[in-house]
Amino acid sequence: MSLPYDKRCPAFRAIDAIGDKWCLMILRDLMVDGPRRFQDFNHARTGMAPNILSGRLKRLETEGIIFKRLYSEHPPRYEYVLTEKGQALTPVLTALRDWGGAFTGKAGP
Amino acid sequence: MSLPYDKRCPAFRAIDAIGDKWCLMILRDLMVDGPRRFQDFNHARTGMAPNILSGRLKRLETEGIIFKRLYSEHPPRYEYVLTEKGQALTPVLTALRDWGGAFTGKAGP
Repeated sequence: MSLPYDKRCPAFRAIDAIGDKWCLMILRDLMVDGPRRFQDFNHARTGMAPNILSGRLKRLETEGIIFKRLYSEHPPRYEYVLTEKGQALTPVLTALRDWGGAFTGKAGP
Repeated sequence: MSLPYDKRCPAFRAIDAIGDKWCLMILRDLMVDGPRRFQDFNHARTGMAPNILSGRLKRLETEGIIFKRLYSEHPPRYEYVLTEKGQALTPVLTALRDWGGAFTGKAGP
């Protein structure tokens, strides 16, 4: 059986993997500020509930876009880091930033 | 009162405006295939329910990213077309396509 049309479209596959407001915001934070711990994602600023953040981090980990790195052994503590696959998304976020800067206002669209 | 941090970030503003799976899929279709009527968005292929499609088209219209163009007067019929602001999103979709081609497989990630 042939694949559904959309799976043959690389743009669709990318949208399917990361085409989500929360995933894009997490990627933006990791690209701008570098590796960070769970609690460093600023929930208040983004309006992202902890369970949403947790779910999206797991999803990005499953997709191989981020990974958890141990940065302290006693007690064990982890931070989230972009993989090579995740870093390769930089042009997507750069294009979003450029468009946002050119076409959206600071007080909203 | 100062704006919340995120509204001052152009990437966030862009994500807020179009960072949604369905919006990105609509934009992709309009960029790849050009102007199209409501019924030309292939629901079966994308899995997008008509009410979702309708809502996202309205949202993109409100954002000034697409507009409805009259292409037949008797009876009145419309098609959806990208505005200049919408066409300026091409680099975002191009970056998504390039990443999808390089990092996701045809059978899924």
